[in-house]
Amino acid sequence: MTDRRGRGRPRDPETDAAILRAALELFIEGGVEGTSMEQIAKRAGVGKLTVYRRWSTKEDLIAQAVEQTVSADLVPSPADIAELDPQQIIEGVIEAAAQMTASPAFRALVARMMGAAVSHPQLMEVYWRHHVLPRRELAAALLRRAQQEGTVAADADLDVLIDMMAGAVTWRVLQPNPPDAAGMLDYLKSVYRQVGLYRPPR
Amino acid sequence: MTDRRGRGRPRDPETDAAILRAALELFIEGGVEGTSMEQIAKRAGVGKLTVYRRWSTKEDLIAQAVEQTVSADLVPSPADIAELDPQQIIEGVIEAAAQMTASPAFRALVARMMGAAVSHPQLMEVYWRHHVLPRRELAAALLRRAQQEGTVAADADLDVLIDMMAGAVTWRVLQPNPPDAAGMLDYLKSVYRQVGLYRPPR
Repeated sequence: MTDRRGRGRPRDPETDAAILRAALELFIEGGVEGTSMEQIAKRAGVGKLTVYRRWSTKEDLIAQAVEQTVSADLVPSPADIAELDPQQIIEGVIEAAAQMTASPAFRALVARMMGAAVSHPQLMEVYWRHHVLPRRELAAALLRRAQQEGTVAADADLDVLIDMMAGAVTWRVLQPNPPDAAGMLDYLKSVYRQVGLYRPPR
Repeated sequence: MTDRRGRGRPRDPETDAAILRAALELFIEGGVEGTSMEQIAKRAGVGKLTVYRRWSTKEDLIAQAVEQTVSADLVPSPADIAELDPQQIIEGVIEAAAQMTASPAFRALVARMMGAAVSHPQLMEVYWRHHVLPRRELAAALLRRAQQEGTVAADADLDVLIDMMAGAVTWRVLQPNPPDAAGMLDYLKSVYRQVGLYRPPR
């Protein structure tokens, strides 16, 4: 991602972290519309030019701040996908995924990202290219493994299946009475089972 | 819905329509945060008290404005669900559903509704109770019919399946490059087929 902030003098990691933290807080509090580069600079305790030297638009900055928050290490590596079966991979990430997706911070971020998708398409475009697409490629690799094993239909449309999984979770957390981590664990199992990626133990 | 606006003097349907239209426009333009009862009154050309006489909060008013827009006649009746098979019911609504969900107005509304879900939960609660829940009950009836016919697994979690269908569509329309009506028709067929509600003609 150096292409996105490689300009100007050498970067101070603490300054970067403070700016990203301020951008995330302001985005959660007020959405894209309620966030300006000036406010971000002020809350991070730096000058506005310091922010602009690193990120040219607030959409780029917010997208990176969101990525850092939701990434964690929930993503199986390509090597895992080649070596393990889908059931093992799901079992390896599902508890952490339940914790993350049940958290208030995740809910707030999903709401703000989706809320900005039409009014500020640039934010979704940056987030999609840098964050969502690489994860969809891994999910597609996992589903192709499951197709080889016969638990996902050979003629299934994998893009649609990925939308159904991601869409179910994002829609569920925005409904009234969102699940806690234990409820989300059951929910994720049910989603993965429905798709053919997971068999509940008997 | 008379309980939601039954107060005060007899209602003038044109005034109601103008207020609902103004609320919808302002909500799409600026989200809940960018909409006030005062602005709605001004744009509708009525006094603020006229608005408050009908709706006690902007969340109630916006929820009703959104419901009127997305309802259309896409919903099969309980009688249809009892008499027709799921394939026939889907075929009867799928073209209109594709038209609606591919429209810019639908995308903008989905984004704004989801965007408000965490910061303004009251809006989602009203919308959920009055609009979403009755439609989920019909979808569940349709899925139970499909279970009887054996195209949906007997042990499927219907709430999760409904989230997967609705979640896929709402997530897809917020992604970069949303489909046009023809693309959405293919997309919906793929979603319904995946769940077991639709068989593409050979």
